[in-house]
Amino acid sequence: MADITTNATIHSFGGRFLKLTHQSSLTGGPMNFTLFLPAGISASDPAPLLIYLSGLTCTPDNVTEKGFLHAHAAPLKLALLYPDTSPRGSDHPGEHDAWDFGSGASFYVDATQQPWAKNYQMETYITDELPDVVFSHFKELDPKRVSIAGHSMGGHGALTLYLKNPGKYQSVSAWSPISNPSACPWGEKAFTGYLGKDREEWKKHDATELVKHWKGPLNALLDVGTGDNFYKQRQLLPENFAEAVKATSIEGLQLRYQEGYDHSYFFISTFGEDHIKHHAKHLGLL
Amino acid sequence: MADITTNATIHSFGGRFLKLTHQSSLTGGPMNFTLFLPAGISASDPAPLLIYLSGLTCTPDNVTEKGFLHAHAAPLKLALLYPDTSPRGSDHPGEHDAWDFGSGASFYVDATQQPWAKNYQMETYITDELPDVVFSHFKELDPKRVSIAGHSMGGHGALTLYLKNPGKYQSVSAWSPISNPSACPWGEKAFTGYLGKDREEWKKHDATELVKHWKGPLNALLDVGTGDNFYKQRQLLPENFAEAVKATSIEGLQLRYQEGYDHSYFFISTFGEDHIKHHAKHLGLL
Repeated sequence: MADITTNATIHSFGGRFLKLTHQSSLTGGPMNFTLFLPAGISASDPAPLLIYLSGLTCTPDNVTEKGFLHAHAAPLKLALLYPDTSPRGSDHPGEHDAWDFGSGASFYVDATQQPWAKNYQMETYITDELPDVVFSHFKELDPKRVSIAGHSMGGHGALTLYLKNPGKYQSVSAWSPISNPSACPWGEKAFTGYLGKDREEWKKHDATELVKHWKGPLNALLDVGTGDNFYKQRQLLPENFAEAVKATSIEGLQLRYQEGYDHSYFFISTFGEDHIKHHAKHLGLL
Repeated sequence: MADITTNATIHSFGGRFLKLTHQSSLTGGPMNFTLFLPAGISASDPAPLLIYLSGLTCTPDNVTEKGFLHAHAAPLKLALLYPDTSPRGSDHPGEHDAWDFGSGASFYVDATQQPWAKNYQMETYITDELPDVVFSHFKELDPKRVSIAGHSMGGHGALTLYLKNPGKYQSVSAWSPISNPSACPWGEKAFTGYLGKDREEWKKHDATELVKHWKGPLNALLDVGTGDNFYKQRQLLPENFAEAVKATSIEGLQLRYQEGYDHSYFFISTFGEDHIKHHAKHLGLL
């Protein structure tokens, strides 16, 4: 069982935030993450877990401090896991030069291009290694009831990992997701760097492509602010995702445009209650 | 009518945060503040206002981003005003050298000692100048219904300005307030610097002294975390305030000790709903 270091324990909304670090074999170094444990859970009455993937430049601290998701998760006894957005400290050439590539910007893929392939293995880190560590340490969490959410780059991560792993997560939600990365500047840059130039490979990591193969209800809630500059700059393209869904017989996509809202944590926190309740419903809490 | 510059407008919880700057004659320079305007208010149906005073080192941004008071104020149509914690940029000798004195640490008094007396006039700034500016610009706010709250140094500010101005504010609340500054290291340093060495003068700015002269119900809610290191270090001394109240016939003090909670915004946000509802009740909203 891998070691976990507890950096801080913070009481909030009746539960506890644990700021933790573990040694990751996949990313080749220490990885920080935050866990919110609601009050009143135990190994005999374990809580389901919502994994929230953060956006570009973020660490687990941003959503911990500004997301306010735990305010709504606490009374429902839903636990929250906030992973980091990339390996840290590997110092590949150029790793820390751009805010939209390298550290803080993994795009949650398993990189195939050097030098990134050595340790930018965030897809497997998020789907396998980190949950294994968490569930082996925290018996008050239920490994059979897990959902996934995210913001922006993390919305891309949530949608793609959900769509690539049917049955692994009970529901998905996203704020301002990068919904069609093959067709936007952020995604083109990241996919070229991590996956190479073959656009056929990119399709395996693009929610708008992946959703075409989905079977059953989608259990998805997406929110996008109409005042979001990245949406206006066509970095997010939720309309492409919605069109792809519309061309199928898939049900269960709720895509909402929220008038005037931007790309910030003020947007995330405003609709946090809706997202938490969406997941709680699919996780059997409501 | 003084000019106000709007630096940002941010949609959140159906309302809007306005990040504003105005030129203050009392502090001799530009002052930032944040205003939260709930949806659905107007000059014909104006909202009451809660003034929240921040703690040491803070700007208006900290509570805006991490306090989540607006999540609870929005549905009640209560507006929020977040002033800065000191003048900025006056560059008195030593002004920026300590985190507990000078910039970010005004203690909300009108300084009588040089060089601070020139512009560290935060008591009158908070009670008179800033509200005048706000109410003259924002006719959707009701100058007759105002309450005051604060955290730590801001809790000291809220309690003392409330107690010094009977009738001006309808209610008071504080998280982790510095409740007896004459008797704690933070207060002794600040009062010596701003007010001089005469401890009789300090009593005019010390909640534990001021409350002895209060008439009528106190309408006060105070929360203190038992895991708060500053409480343990006897910087806060809420027990002295409670004892002073107990020695009188004053009613209406609700002082709660919250098990395990620290001094952070995680504590503020956890009990934000209780504080907002406390004020909403006294402001006629509940």
